[in-house]
Amino acid sequence: MSRTPEEEASLRLVLDMFEHVLNPMDSGAVDRFISPDYIQHNQSVTPGRESLKAFLDMIKVQSPEAMHDVKRAFVDGDHVTVHYHVRRWPGDLGWAVIDIFRVADGLIAEHWDVMQDVVDGGPNPIGPF
Amino acid sequence: MSRTPEEEASLRLVLDMFEHVLNPMDSGAVDRFISPDYIQHNQSVTPGRESLKAFLDMIKVQSPEAMHDVKRAFVDGDHVTVHYHVRRWPGDLGWAVIDIFRVADGLIAEHWDVMQDVVDGGPNPIGPF
Repeated sequence: MSRTPEEEASLRLVLDMFEHVLNPMDSGAVDRFISPDYIQHNQSVTPGRESLKAFLDMIKVQSPEAMHDVKRAFVDGDHVTVHYHVRRWPGDLGWAVIDIFRVADGLIAEHWDVMQDVVDGGPNPIGPF
Repeated sequence: MSRTPEEEASLRLVLDMFEHVLNPMDSGAVDRFISPDYIQHNQSVTPGRESLKAFLDMIKVQSPEAMHDVKRAFVDGDHVTVHYHVRRWPGDLGWAVIDIFRVADGLIAEHWDVMQDVVDGGPNPIGPF
């Protein structure tokens, strides 16, 4: 492992965003972590930082018990990867998600993600995480 | 960026695997890149290195024109992340995929992935890559 202090700070920024924004679904904390010029690649939402706040407010109502369990996270230069398990309620099979974030000037500036249903059963006895 | 020579070698191993195994769907090249103790977390296939070879032989018949376009790749310690676009034929919308690989002793030892359909249209004019 050869992380620079800047890489450690970028990884910490993203994990703090999970703790203070995603897990509590707190739109009021978005501006501390997300750039005003945020580039959103998720295909299901409208672009931009304000749209992210509206999305958080919506899912907080729809799924107040939602959990985002981080399984592993990595940093390379200004990019951070996070692999996590989203469950909307206790016992939900939920989704496996991998996010990639680009950090610039101490804020999350760009975001790509891929998500997939977790299945019960199937040909592989080894779990998705 | 602060990649060590070991990290550069792990990243190169994974990108070479895309070039020599995934893109040509060449099961004969698997043993040069994948550990005999390969831990497969993809939920849709049976576990292990031999199963990967059978999978490659199958998709080579089903989708001989399949392409895997790497969009970005990162390394942190012994883990490599690759974000890429799978298309089964020219013009296919295909899937967005993010893989995470763990490298050990110069071979790919473990693999997690998440994949999602690329959609046409939708609320976000910014593309998934």
